[in-house]
Amino acid sequence: MSSLKPFDLSVYVITDNRLSQGRSIEDIVTGAINGGATCIQLREKELSTRELYNKAKLLRELTRRQGITFIVNDRLDVAMAVEADGVHLGQDDLPASVGRRILPPQMILGITARNLPQALQFERDGASYLGVGAVYGTETKDNTGTPIGLQGLAEIVRGVKIPIVGIGGINAQRAGEVIRAGASGVAVISAIVAAADVAAATQEIACAVNEARLGPDS
Amino acid sequence: MSSLKPFDLSVYVITDNRLSQGRSIEDIVTGAINGGATCIQLREKELSTRELYNKAKLLRELTRRQGITFIVNDRLDVAMAVEADGVHLGQDDLPASVGRRILPPQMILGITARNLPQALQFERDGASYLGVGAVYGTETKDNTGTPIGLQGLAEIVRGVKIPIVGIGGINAQRAGEVIRAGASGVAVISAIVAAADVAAATQEIACAVNEARLGPDS
Repeated sequence: MSSLKPFDLSVYVITDNRLSQGRSIEDIVTGAINGGATCIQLREKELSTRELYNKAKLLRELTRRQGITFIVNDRLDVAMAVEADGVHLGQDDLPASVGRRILPPQMILGITARNLPQALQFERDGASYLGVGAVYGTETKDNTGTPIGLQGLAEIVRGVKIPIVGIGGINAQRAGEVIRAGASGVAVISAIVAAADVAAATQEIACAVNEARLGPDS
Repeated sequence: MSSLKPFDLSVYVITDNRLSQGRSIEDIVTGAINGGATCIQLREKELSTRELYNKAKLLRELTRRQGITFIVNDRLDVAMAVEADGVHLGQDDLPASVGRRILPPQMILGITARNLPQALQFERDGASYLGVGAVYGTETKDNTGTPIGLQGLAEIVRGVKIPIVGIGGINAQRAGEVIRAGASGVAVISAIVAAADVAAATQEIACAVNEARLGPDS
């Protein structure tokens, strides 16, 4: 961890071109950044490597200019190729320990965890942060299984030292309770990517995150 | 090039599970190795990263045991993860120059080239060898365009210093003329992977390669 630059998972937006209603990935990401996203994950399963690389290069420029953390899903090679801040590996991707071994040490390694035993293992394997969920039921990601709920999330937050981002069915109404359960941030796909006004939708979630951090008395 | 171990492209077998008629990738590769394959490329477009990684680990063990060169198609990260000998990048994959930049220097970088200007560019970009074709018409790979023929192949062989493996529609009948045109080896998919007897089909091609090298008088 010591070699990593600080990163801010507060409002963590994951792309999904299938939900973008014809808008380009860079348009969605620009809107998210304008609305206060702190971290962008490029997650596109239907592009060739070359297409993904070209999109990743574009997003790397957009995010670097704004000081936003940029993560590539699954493709460690593409993440390295564009000098992304890191890579996120799900359970169908390379194992966490293998990812940590081949990733340059200054790069962030995010790993998906569904329960505390997994979270503890991936922390030992060298994960920089964990994406934990699904917190709520969701249609966006495949195979997410039974939602773990806020209690499941809080249990993992208490069990590990690395930052946790909640994922799965999170929207502006729910973002506050995810933060209050101890998450460092909320990962959002459809509530932002499918929104008619991406910047406004992101801003609503960013406000909910900030309010939750200020606590019940503010 | 100086940091690379020597590699033998003579009989270069590329996997394709869609042509394997229900046999496992490792069964096909075992047959190919038994028949005299000198290089195996794992090329599977329909597996998740985790599945590809698991297959690559298996093939790395099979090939290492026999001293066979092992190349992973497209996925530089998977190639690194299993300590393959190298990676092969096609025109939908990472650009050659980017691949060379992020690949460890001791790993082989193979690049697909379709004409002499491309071949010269990829040689400058740091390719260790080139896969050149399609030499003949083929149904196996997408978007290979008009076949370049033996003359097109010979022109590229004369133009670059790095080894060339011919690809596209090569079978036992054609392997000899590809070698006589100057190729260091023949890359074969369907003539081996779809064969009822993979070892026998490989051996037939290996014999044709060896005979062509002995020249017309032998």
